[in-house]
Amino acid sequence: MTTNPLPAEALFTDLYELTMAQAYQAEGMDQLAVFELAFREMPRNRNYAVAAGFQDVLDFLTGFHFSAGEIHYLRLNGEFSEVFLNALERLRFTGDVNAVPEGTLVFPNEPLLQVIAPIAEAQLIETFVLNQIHFQSIAATKAARVVAAAHGRMIVDFGSRRSHGIDAALKVSRATYLAGGAGTSNALAGKIYGIPVFGTMAHSYIQAHDDESASFDSFARLYPETTLLVDTYDTLTGVRKVIELSQKLGERFQVRAVRLDSGDLGSLAVDTRKMLDEAGLQRVKIFASSGLDEYKIQELMNSGAPIDVFGVGTKLAVIADAPELDMAYKLVEYGGKGRLKLSTKKLLYPGRKQVFRQIDNGRMAGDVIGRFDEPLAGEPLLKTLLLRGQPTTRIELAESRRHLQRELKSLPDHLHGLQSASTPYPVSFREQLKTDLNTIRRKLGFDDSRGGR
Amino acid sequence: MTTNPLPAEALFTDLYELTMAQAYQAEGMDQLAVFELAFREMPRNRNYAVAAGFQDVLDFLTGFHFSAGEIHYLRLNGEFSEVFLNALERLRFTGDVNAVPEGTLVFPNEPLLQVIAPIAEAQLIETFVLNQIHFQSIAATKAARVVAAAHGRMIVDFGSRRSHGIDAALKVSRATYLAGGAGTSNALAGKIYGIPVFGTMAHSYIQAHDDESASFDSFARLYPETTLLVDTYDTLTGVRKVIELSQKLGERFQVRAVRLDSGDLGSLAVDTRKMLDEAGLQRVKIFASSGLDEYKIQELMNSGAPIDVFGVGTKLAVIADAPELDMAYKLVEYGGKGRLKLSTKKLLYPGRKQVFRQIDNGRMAGDVIGRFDEPLAGEPLLKTLLLRGQPTTRIELAESRRHLQRELKSLPDHLHGLQSASTPYPVSFREQLKTDLNTIRRKLGFDDSRGGR
Repeated sequence: MTTNPLPAEALFTDLYELTMAQAYQAEGMDQLAVFELAFREMPRNRNYAVAAGFQDVLDFLTGFHFSAGEIHYLRLNGEFSEVFLNALERLRFTGDVNAVPEGTLVFPNEPLLQVIAPIAEAQLIETFVLNQIHFQSIAATKAARVVAAAHGRMIVDFGSRRSHGIDAALKVSRATYLAGGAGTSNALAGKIYGIPVFGTMAHSYIQAHDDESASFDSFARLYPETTLLVDTYDTLTGVRKVIELSQKLGERFQVRAVRLDSGDLGSLAVDTRKMLDEAGLQRVKIFASSGLDEYKIQELMNSGAPIDVFGVGTKLAVIADAPELDMAYKLVEYGGKGRLKLSTKKLLYPGRKQVFRQIDNGRMAGDVIGRFDEPLAGEPLLKTLLLRGQPTTRIELAESRRHLQRELKSLPDHLHGLQSASTPYPVSFREQLKTDLNTIRRKLGFDDSRGGR
Repeated sequence: MTTNPLPAEALFTDLYELTMAQAYQAEGMDQLAVFELAFREMPRNRNYAVAAGFQDVLDFLTGFHFSAGEIHYLRLNGEFSEVFLNALERLRFTGDVNAVPEGTLVFPNEPLLQVIAPIAEAQLIETFVLNQIHFQSIAATKAARVVAAAHGRMIVDFGSRRSHGIDAALKVSRATYLAGGAGTSNALAGKIYGIPVFGTMAHSYIQAHDDESASFDSFARLYPETTLLVDTYDTLTGVRKVIELSQKLGERFQVRAVRLDSGDLGSLAVDTRKMLDEAGLQRVKIFASSGLDEYKIQELMNSGAPIDVFGVGTKLAVIADAPELDMAYKLVEYGGKGRLKLSTKKLLYPGRKQVFRQIDNGRMAGDVIGRFDEPLAGEPLLKTLLLRGQPTTRIELAESRRHLQRELKSLPDHLHGLQSASTPYPVSFREQLKTDLNTIRRKLGFDDSRGGR
């Protein structure tokens, strides 16, 4: 296992973070800020989200610095003073970060991550932190649904070619494994994350041979326990050729599976199973791919389709039904004082918070969002990840995977479906936060009753 | 301008590409293959796609090699022989690549890119090539629609925080500029691609100050020609504070714009414009962001909303309405013989092709897909990009941008809308390709009339 090859460059930031940082310096504003990362609404069909991506944030923050080339680029921009650029060159991330454990189930308005740092530092890291936690969380959430729909049958990520870029492909591979999937087809992801890599064969291999049977024969001799792709010309004809190969090879035939990659997967799987069984090939499994997602897999499972392994591509890779989460990184405290924002529909409670999860009989019974130092019952979800710029832990994918499985076991039954439940998971704000909100609102000159005026 | 910081590692490939490459070696199959990249169906609401991403393919192919660490990882995998790993260590890309010029408008079934190389090489690069061309093309297509909807008003990419990973964020920034957008908020994209970078201010800056007016004052002193964000607490109150600042600063007030980032942007823009105009601030422009895409911008433009600049975020960043294109990289020829595939709904014409674009009176009149060497009328779209592993050209973003503008000017009027036109752009296959298809189909033992049997 190696580290993520993607460069975490400090310049991966929105320009305004830099102009604001310069303004903070010019104004002598260098006190501690608290920023919290949360999403506001659950996307369509979701009952939970899976928090993910914190190791990349750790790596980014511990290596945080602007290179000479980046400083040079900013100098050419013309908006930045030498005083600021000199400070930027020396800048490192010196703050604290708290986050929920990776794999934790999270809900609207709950802080997943909290940054406590001199305001310029906390501001400059926004774009990267949000980019990674947002994407890795929506990917893990999608993958968890796909895995759930398969009820224990294997899920393999096949989507690298359609992911939105290289980084997304690697992160979807990781998210699939995090969510309980078996692995990925992406070899680089296998190397980076130490996760299982799967491969079958492509249509092009068969096409390159003048004869489909000959291509099966060659591949199976080289890789006795392989999976043969049967739909290049006609699926059931392909299955028949696999059966003929088994008769030809006898004991030496050890092919593990056939793969269906087009057509009506449900009915083709039934016919394929029947043909294989009649030929005494009960041990040969059926691998299906093409247009799969959690909805399609649920449909196939409900119809009793005899599919053993699902290769899930595009719809998982692009998180097709919920490609975004309304996630934001918001200032809630500066210089020890709570801060708020009243923009329409974007109400924000001020002050540093903690999420207290109530467990009843081993099941999640509701979350309470309070001040971080309130002595409330329940498990506090936000835990230290980075202290004064130094990591206090390393996130292990295998542990995150186990944690998510435990979380899903303790999730109430009615929240496991692929559609929105009529009763969402209960999350409440402590009365004290509302009082704090109104106090600050009054100070700013806005009354208590409306979002603005 | 520097090169793309994303490592183009050869191991970014699906495992089966490697097992197939080993099989080709074992079978002595080292002849030239032709693979073509095309998409099969236009996504909902699209009348054209914009081809993009070829420079990353060029960079990947010219630097193509497996590192010692990658070879080591594959050795541990256990499926690969030393003979194969040794060959892999020495492998470079030695083939030819043809592609349409970046920014070309393309349509279903047209090859955008063609690879002619020893089969193992052509096979191993599939995952990367498809990942990049697919994503950059859907991003450029989306961006072109957003730019078109704004009818000449400025478009700035604001989506880096919600893009699917780092690579996607950088590529969306580039695609926005390629499509005629003004630039991006992403500083790293500005550095890498040499494109304009824009920034305003964030809510957090205003929140960190005890007083909104004071924050406007500070920011405008440091950045006289800045854009002030007015909706942190209440949009029109914010506008009033900007007007007060203009009265206080007099001649020194040079603020260029106010930004609206929540609420009903259309009616807020009307009220804001009226307030600014009444205060003699006709020169202060209105910048709008929050939930924008081509549909919302068209609606705002149709309603006459006085918005001068649109900051487009999430929906462009994730290509929300069409996050995937049914794009594939298919073997069409091996060892000089045409190859096909008959899987349901995935019919593929065999043989190396060319796209001939017919121009009538300066407008695109239809494309004809023929054999690459047919002497047909029209402009051949596929041009050499790489010859025997060496690039024959370098793709310049500024030139791609101009090319796309020319392409859009020559696109028939009825194909410019944001909905699917009732008459799509005409693309036809030459009769000769159909004859070739049937000849091969017969050789494989399938009759002419059906996709399979």
